[in-house]
Amino acid sequence: MKLYKKGADTSYTLGVFPTIELLKHRPEIVKRVVVHSKIKDNSGYPLIVDLCNEHHIHIDEHDATIDKLSPKANCLAVGIFKVFDTQLEEGNHIVLDHPMDMGNIGTIMRTALGFGYTNIAIIRPAVNIFDPKAIRASMGALFSLNVVYYDDFESYRHDFPDHHCYPFMLKGATNIHKVEVTYPHALIFGNESSGLDDRYLQYGQSVFIPHYETIDSLNLSISLGIGLFHFSKRDFINKEVLK
Amino acid sequence: MKLYKKGADTSYTLGVFPTIELLKHRPEIVKRVVVHSKIKDNSGYPLIVDLCNEHHIHIDEHDATIDKLSPKANCLAVGIFKVFDTQLEEGNHIVLDHPMDMGNIGTIMRTALGFGYTNIAIIRPAVNIFDPKAIRASMGALFSLNVVYYDDFESYRHDFPDHHCYPFMLKGATNIHKVEVTYPHALIFGNESSGLDDRYLQYGQSVFIPHYETIDSLNLSISLGIGLFHFSKRDFINKEVLK
Repeated sequence: MKLYKKGADTSYTLGVFPTIELLKHRPEIVKRVVVHSKIKDNSGYPLIVDLCNEHHIHIDEHDATIDKLSPKANCLAVGIFKVFDTQLEEGNHIVLDHPMDMGNIGTIMRTALGFGYTNIAIIRPAVNIFDPKAIRASMGALFSLNVVYYDDFESYRHDFPDHHCYPFMLKGATNIHKVEVTYPHALIFGNESSGLDDRYLQYGQSVFIPHYETIDSLNLSISLGIGLFHFSKRDFINKEVLK
Repeated sequence: MKLYKKGADTSYTLGVFPTIELLKHRPEIVKRVVVHSKIKDNSGYPLIVDLCNEHHIHIDEHDATIDKLSPKANCLAVGIFKVFDTQLEEGNHIVLDHPMDMGNIGTIMRTALGFGYTNIAIIRPAVNIFDPKAIRASMGALFSLNVVYYDDFESYRHDFPDHHCYPFMLKGATNIHKVEVTYPHALIFGNESSGLDDRYLQYGQSVFIPHYETIDSLNLSISLGIGLFHFSKRDFINKEVLK
């Protein structure tokens, strides 16, 4: 097993939790699972064994493979899988313009899943969602999402011309607290450093998240968390308990 | 100049932006500024020079010091300062119970500053806000905040018995969308992995941020961003432009 390289047709999960998510949601793409000899006491191990049995997936115990793929971390399981294509479905979308940070994209995928935004369009150039670091940061949320790359925003728009666009921009025209939420929508967020360029002001209803000028901007994953929280309010306002 | 160690009475900023924040907001604690010979073309350099002149702070050009303190990053300026104590003021507070992640605490400080929450209580054991990595992640927001460590929550409560407490918990009693916001308040957030323990249910009005059970929980900085956004709405709802 080789270390992941961008563009490879095989990647892997690092850790018990994301490996379980892989086995639960995308068992058909799993090639094999490798576990560390120390995994026996881990509370997730019986579930890994059950899921592998159910889907006839081979488990190898091989410490050297794990140490090679995850030299620093205390990793107990690796799920090796074939990278996969998905299609965006109707319903609300997130569009990420040139996201570049591995940790951010993981947090974004996890947050998106939590708020029910299971369709994400990514405009290239962009971070690679199949990088093991991104998968780990997503805690395996990737395996429950549809994520599609586009070369430019116009190509996305061509596929989904009827989604109401809400570009999140420092120059946005409307305060998020006052925006009228319509469905289905596409919430559009820019790159970590540069945000969305002015071109996006022409699409739909641009939005800003108000804050004091003591900071230049909120960071991308915070803005996205707030945006999703606000735009999905209808689905959650009457929930009486979380757990 | 030595690499920062926990408990040292001197620390440093890494990078032009946080160094400017230090010089702007806490010039009295700055011992000296060290710049890299490559800084001349950086757009922030003239401001560093002006601020150092204004406050009679010495600037050294010394590449070896910078390379030592920041071996990996492309760092052009370092501001060496004496660690400082602050006091919490009245007004709204954030309380962080056992935050442990260096990057998170930086993002949290920056987000807090943006939403006008300039007073943060941290319950030990906890990450060290004077670690250069935390300062860098905060982009220097630390220098505009009051941050006070407490050994336990009761000690904080003793100092500020009249703040309305809102512990953010998966088991929280009230949906954030329906909570009545009162002032001054303390928004309380737990550790990255374990959240707040059940003991916090007894303090004030516990709150949950509703999401689907497809994820275990939102991550700490996302929860905090959403909490601050929601609880500070009164101050921002009528803002008509951001920039």
